Amino acid sequence: MKRNPNFEKLTPKYLFPEINSRKRKFFANHPSASLINLGVGDTTEPIPKCIANALSHFSIKMSTHEGYSGYGPEQGIKNLREKIASSIYSNKIAPEDIFVSDGAKCDLGRLQILFGKEVSIAVQDPSYPVYIEGSLIQGVEKILKMPCSPENGFFPSLNLLPKVNLIYFCSPNNPTGMAATRSQLEELVAFAESNQSVIIFDSAYANFIQDPNLPKSIFEIKGAEKVAIEIGSFSKLAGFTGIRLGWTVIPEGLKYEDGRSIKADWHRLTSTLFNGASNIAQQGGCAVLEQDGLQEIACIVKFYQENACILKDALESVGHTVFGGINAPYLWVRFKGQNSWDVFQHFLEKYHIVTTPGAGFGPGGDEYIRFSAFGRREDILNTSIRIKKAQVA
Amino acid sequence: MKRNPNFEKLTPKYLFPEINSRKRKFFANHPSASLINLGVGDTTEPIPKCIANALSHFSIKMSTHEGYSGYGPEQGIKNLREKIASSIYSNKIAPEDIFVSDGAKCDLGRLQILFGKEVSIAVQDPSYPVYIEGSLIQGVEKILKMPCSPENGFFPSLNLLPKVNLIYFCSPNNPTGMAATRSQLEELVAFAESNQSVIIFDSAYANFIQDPNLPKSIFEIKGAEKVAIEIGSFSKLAGFTGIRLGWTVIPEGLKYEDGRSIKADWHRLTSTLFNGASNIAQQGGCAVLEQDGLQEIACIVKFYQENACILKDALESVGHTVFGGINAPYLWVRFKGQNSWDVFQHFLEKYHIVTTPGAGFGPGGDEYIRFSAFGRREDILNTSIRIKKAQVA
Repeated sequence: MKRNPNFEKLTPKYLFPEINSRKRKFFANHPSASLINLGVGDTTEPIPKCIANALSHFSIKMSTHEGYSGYGPEQGIKNLREKIASSIYSNKIAPEDIFVSDGAKCDLGRLQILFGKEVSIAVQDPSYPVYIEGSLIQGVEKILKMPCSPENGFFPSLNLLPKVNLIYFCSPNNPTGMAATRSQLEELVAFAESNQSVIIFDSAYANFIQDPNLPKSIFEIKGAEKVAIEIGSFSKLAGFTGIRLGWTVIPEGLKYEDGRSIKADWHRLTSTLFNGASNIAQQGGCAVLEQDGLQEIACIVKFYQENACILKDALESVGHTVFGGINAPYLWVRFKGQNSWDVFQHFLEKYHIVTTPGAGFGPGGDEYIRFSAFGRREDILNTSIRIKKAQVA
Repeated sequence: MKRNPNFEKLTPKYLFPEINSRKRKFFANHPSASLINLGVGDTTEPIPKCIANALSHFSIKMSTHEGYSGYGPEQGIKNLREKIASSIYSNKIAPEDIFVSDGAKCDLGRLQILFGKEVSIAVQDPSYPVYIEGSLIQGVEKILKMPCSPENGFFPSLNLLPKVNLIYFCSPNNPTGMAATRSQLEELVAFAESNQSVIIFDSAYANFIQDPNLPKSIFEIKGAEKVAIEIGSFSKLAGFTGIRLGWTVIPEGLKYEDGRSIKADWHRLTSTLFNGASNIAQQGGCAVLEQDGLQEIACIVKFYQENACILKDALESVGHTVFGGINAPYLWVRFKGQNSWDVFQHFLEKYHIVTTPGAGFGPGGDEYIRFSAFGRREDILNTSIRIKKAQVA
């Protein structure tokens, strides 16, 4: 058996395992250090009681004949799809175009299977590594990086982009924390329309948008329903990183160039290689989108937004250049001319703070590190103190 | 955007959607019919209280700071991997070689990504459609079918099989309900050893084996740890079809021909395109593998085994030729010279019983239908009565 040649194209280590390995090394040398982890963007706040109760209630029901359920529809339970359509999309998206998943990352993998290896793709640089790595695993060869920096307002210069099949676009962006404006997204949709591109819009951080003028979904842009797929997630919306729940919207109007339905192939793919998200997680998702669930999760998002604000203030107070952190849970801090792994190591060793080196998100991240605002308040305040004092407290 | 050419190779409809469409049509013509569904192999018995309590308890803990957890290891929580190693494999498999998944079907999809499109594969004919369909979606072209029928004891004639990269092998088999003997599996492992093949052994129905002489895992066979991957599932083991939990064993000793580790690539793939099974489902899995959990699920398996026995008796009493149903929850009934969709339609219209037409599992199923023994006892008894009376009661 020969190795699948696509694996040769991957860099030896994926970002987070490398960070973990550096952390372990640090701990081996500083066994008593109080390390604060603002690296991986992982939620830390408990899920609201009303949601936990729904999960628990359904679990107990599963032990009764009346409440037991086996395989559900691969596309997700009807109630949840309807709730996503109404709560997230104000019923401008039909429940039939919503496919419930076990998370955005998993659906990205399946989307890459859907489109196969012959496609050309474009990704924001920097961006979430899964767009490129998943495509490489699938055998995709034509990968274009669209630089996003303060110089272009973190929005790709589309006039420089050749015709391309798929455009991965994440807004609010991970890692830059910058959200695209309405006119920028209009420009993106117009590009896709005139180049027959499909946009894969990653909206995992949409509910962190505070500015009411910024779109939370690509489908707020006219014409997007013919050129875009949107991936959504309960992970950051509701603290479901471990529970695993997300969705993908593939509009009925999205077609291949021969007029055939992309959604039909997606349905075929997911019913062949997927068996639906956990029924317990789906009941939790329904509870999230009830009125009290929505109120509770809004408080948690607000809490993380405050975290971001505290971090931003601290970093700026000592003269750092900070992007993001207002409409997103990430702060993107620039260290001009420096290597991001060196800066990462510096923050690890000097402040005992774990960040994410920008290089992990592509060459466009070379002189940046990312701070995640997901964290316990105590840790965020201690980070602020350490940074302001320029030493470990 | 062009359609991925791999999708052209799929038959227009996947088996179960087609069955559902025929059911809907039947109901439209017989709105008051009492249809018994023994088609899809979906569990019907509630999960034991001790397992439901564990799911519920963990859900509630998720609403506390102490009990909350976010992203877990993609490979699954340590406790669950250790319990699978000890309960299922008597510690002959290391926990480090066990990867927890959201189900066998999903991991089959990921295994197909792992090996890519250049491999040649062999599958039992008849077999679970996902082996072939998932491979076609991935672009695999070299697909060999290994006929399995009463004439060869439902075990492929390996002396006729050319050198092949991957061999999908399911035992106890879906759909035939036949389990391979130790000497048959020894022959299979020997074939893989001398042809540098990798066996993907699907053990989803292992706990239905009643005969103590039949192996429940490919790893009971000497040498398998160098030539086999095993896929396991909590779906039929513990009624987790909706909760979603499974595992894949990739032994450290399994290598590509250049000596590199297959497990290392699998780890890379799953940490790139997967985020672990739901943490709630994983806690449920731990409870399944506790002593009381194991006792309870053994009772449920026994219940389905009795169902199978009742169905087998009824079908044989009216002269049908029945295979399987002893060491598996499926009965494979032969109708020599007949077309399986016709037989399916006959059982639907005459007895109001939904089965699965054998043709859905490959040409080797052409003159068979499959009965699933998953079902409420009342339905199984009514099926028995209908078949014996040769009419709807």
